[in-house]
Amino acid sequence: MNNFSYCNPTKMVFGKDSQKEAGRLIKPDADRILLHYGSGSIKKSGLYDEVITSLKDAGIEVFELAGVVPNPRLSLVHEGIEICRKNNIEYILAVGGGSVIDSAKAIALGVHYENDVWDFYYKGTQPENKVLKVSTILTIPAAGSESSPDTVITNEETELKIGYTCEKLRPVFSIVNPELFFTLPKNQLAYGVCDMMSHIMERYFTNTINTDLIDGLSESTLKTIIKNALIAKNDMKNYEAWAEIALSGSFAHNGFLGMGREQDWSCHGMEHELSAIYDVPHGAGLAVMTPAWMKYVYKDNIPMFVQFAVNVMGVEGSFREPEKLALDGIEKLTQFFVSMGLPITMKELGIDKKDFEIMAKKATGFNRGTEHPIGGFKKLLWEDIYKIFQLADE
Amino acid sequence: MNNFSYCNPTKMVFGKDSQKEAGRLIKPDADRILLHYGSGSIKKSGLYDEVITSLKDAGIEVFELAGVVPNPRLSLVHEGIEICRKNNIEYILAVGGGSVIDSAKAIALGVHYENDVWDFYYKGTQPENKVLKVSTILTIPAAGSESSPDTVITNEETELKIGYTCEKLRPVFSIVNPELFFTLPKNQLAYGVCDMMSHIMERYFTNTINTDLIDGLSESTLKTIIKNALIAKNDMKNYEAWAEIALSGSFAHNGFLGMGREQDWSCHGMEHELSAIYDVPHGAGLAVMTPAWMKYVYKDNIPMFVQFAVNVMGVEGSFREPEKLALDGIEKLTQFFVSMGLPITMKELGIDKKDFEIMAKKATGFNRGTEHPIGGFKKLLWEDIYKIFQLADE
Repeated sequence: MNNFSYCNPTKMVFGKDSQKEAGRLIKPDADRILLHYGSGSIKKSGLYDEVITSLKDAGIEVFELAGVVPNPRLSLVHEGIEICRKNNIEYILAVGGGSVIDSAKAIALGVHYENDVWDFYYKGTQPENKVLKVSTILTIPAAGSESSPDTVITNEETELKIGYTCEKLRPVFSIVNPELFFTLPKNQLAYGVCDMMSHIMERYFTNTINTDLIDGLSESTLKTIIKNALIAKNDMKNYEAWAEIALSGSFAHNGFLGMGREQDWSCHGMEHELSAIYDVPHGAGLAVMTPAWMKYVYKDNIPMFVQFAVNVMGVEGSFREPEKLALDGIEKLTQFFVSMGLPITMKELGIDKKDFEIMAKKATGFNRGTEHPIGGFKKLLWEDIYKIFQLADE
Repeated sequence: MNNFSYCNPTKMVFGKDSQKEAGRLIKPDADRILLHYGSGSIKKSGLYDEVITSLKDAGIEVFELAGVVPNPRLSLVHEGIEICRKNNIEYILAVGGGSVIDSAKAIALGVHYENDVWDFYYKGTQPENKVLKVSTILTIPAAGSESSPDTVITNEETELKIGYTCEKLRPVFSIVNPELFFTLPKNQLAYGVCDMMSHIMERYFTNTINTDLIDGLSESTLKTIIKNALIAKNDMKNYEAWAEIALSGSFAHNGFLGMGREQDWSCHGMEHELSAIYDVPHGAGLAVMTPAWMKYVYKDNIPMFVQFAVNVMGVEGSFREPEKLALDGIEKLTQFFVSMGLPITMKELGIDKKDFEIMAKKATGFNRGTEHPIGGFKKLLWEDIYKIFQLADE
C-alpha cells in the first residue's frame, strides 16, 4: 500500500424526501444563493417547486441560472460568475447531474479569480482566491461529482474538454433521493452505470501490490452496481435498486477506492477527446473505450485481469489458463454493457476513423508540442491510443 | 435501505513517516496544545521524541498529560480539563490507542462545560458549549476512535463504563503509520482485530433488507482483517498486513459501514459491563460475547447468518441446510478467535458466575429502575443477557 492522505468532508443526506432539507442545511452558511440547473426538467418533475419552497421557507434569497448542457460549457460558467459577482453570492446550489455540479464548481472557482477561470483547467494550478461553497441535489447518479473534488468543463471555442481537481471543490452537502431518478430515460441509467463503473475501474487496475482492502471494496461496489443496474433496467421505479446504484456512484468517485494505490485514468482521458469533438455522452464513450483499453493492456498484468474476471465478473474456469480467464472477464463486461443498451464500437458512436489520429494526439498533448503519456497502469503514447481507437472500431 | 445522513471530515494521513507531519498539520489551527498519551511506551519507542520535534519545529508550545490506562478513567479526564483551562489550550493531540483518544475527546468536551463532563456520558445530551479540536497519532489499531465520533469513559467511582457519541468529536486528522505497530505485543493485535471486527458485525447483523452495497463492503472488510491478522500474528513486523488491518479498523468504526441500516450493538453493551467490573481488555471481552450472542440470536434471522457464514467465513455446504451453515459460520469465527489466542469463555476472562446477574441488569439499566432493552437485531432484556452470559460460560 502506498502512502496517502484522504479527507472527504461532504455530508451525504440520503433518502426519501431529503430534497426538502435543502433550505435548512444551507441557511447557517448563506442567506442568498445561486440555484444552478439544466434544461428545466426539474420544473416538469416538481422538484424545482419543492426546492424553491424549502429555500424560501428558510428565508434564503434565490438567484437562478439554468441551461447547463451535457459536457458543460465554459460560456455558461462565465455567465454564472457574473451573476454571483453582481449579486454578492457566496453559495451555489446545483440541482442536477454531474454536468450541473461541475458547472457550479467552475463558477465557484471563478468568482473571486481576477482572470479567466479556464486558467485553472488549462494550467492545473490551485486557487489562491476564495472558492464559493457548493452543495448539490443529485438528479442523475453517474459522475460522482456530488462528493468529489473534480470538475470537467468543455471550452467550446477550443474544443478542449479538461478535468480539474481541487479539494476546496468538494460539496458541503449532497442530497441523494433515489425517487428523483424514477423518471430518467433508460439510456441515462446505462450511461451513469458505465461512468461510475469506470471511476472504480480506473482506480482498480493497478500495479501497486498489497491492496487487499481497497481491491475487495472495489469489487463489492462493482458487483453491486451490475446487479442493481440489471434490476433497474427492467423496473425504472425500483427505489432500492436506484439507492444501491446511487450510493455506489458516490463511493465510486469520492476517492476512497483510490487510497494507497497507483491509478490509471486513461479511459477517461481518451473519452474526453471523443466527447470534446463529437459531444457523445460520457458514459457511452467510456463503454466503447473500456473494453478496447482492456484488450490492449491486459497482457501487462494478467493476474490483475484474472482477479477482475473472477471476483467482479464471476467468470469460472481453470486458473491454469489465466489468459483465457482474463479475456472471458473482458468479454463478460462487454456483454454487460451490451445488455444495458450501451454502444461498444466507435461506429455506434458515429465517430469517423479520420479523427482517430487527432483525438489520439490531443489525448497526450502531442499536438501541442509536448507529449505526456497517460495512464498509470500502462503508460500510453498517442500511437498506443490510436491503436486502442482501432481496436474499438472492430 | 433506510434514510441516513453521513459526514466524516477527519483527514486520514496514512503511511511511513506520517507522524512527522503532526506539527505542520496542527499549526494552522493552534499554537499551543495538550499532548495526551498513555504509559510512556511512546518514549521507549522513540515516537515521543519524533512528535515533540515535529511540534517544536512548527513553533507549537506543548503541555503534557500522560497516564491514560485501558478503559480510560474519568479522574484523568478531570485532570486534563484543568490543564487546558489553566493554560488556555484549545487543541489536543492524542498519541496512543483508543483509550488515549477517547480520553482526549472527553477532555475536549469538558473544558468549556461548566459542570462535570460525566453529564454528557450519563445523560447523553449534546454539547452546547465549544468543543476542543482533537487530532491523533494512532499507536494501536483497534477502537477506530481515530475517525469516529465516539468516546467511552469509565467512572471508577460508580463502576460505570459509558459510551458517548457526538459528531463534533471526530478528529481533525489522524496519522496512521503501520510501522508504529511493529512493537505491539501479540495480544494487542488479537484484541484490536476482535474489536474492529465487532464494530463491523454490530452494524452488519441487521433486519433491514436491500443493503447490497454495505453488506458487500462489510464482508470485504471482515475478510481483509481475518486474512491479514493471520499473517501479522506470525510476522509482527509485516508492514503490509498492519496497513490492511489499520485501514480496515478505521473504516470499521467511522460509520460508513452503518449507512442506511438498523444496527445492533448489544455485544458492545454487554462487554462494557464485563470490563467495567473486571477491567478485562475490551477485545477479549468481545471475543467471549460475540459467539455467545450469535448462538442466542441466530434463529431469528437464519438467512443473515447464512450470508455471514458463506460470504465472510467461507463456509461451504448445502444451502438446503441453512441452520447448519449458520452454525458452521459461528463455529469458524470462534475458531478464528481461538487461533488468534483470544479467550472465548467467561472462565478464561476470570469472570465469576455470581456477577452475571448484576452485569446483565446493569446492561439494560434494570438495576437503575428503568429497563431499556439493548440490541437492534434482537431486543435483549436483562434475562436474555443473563442467558448469553451463561452460553459464554460453557
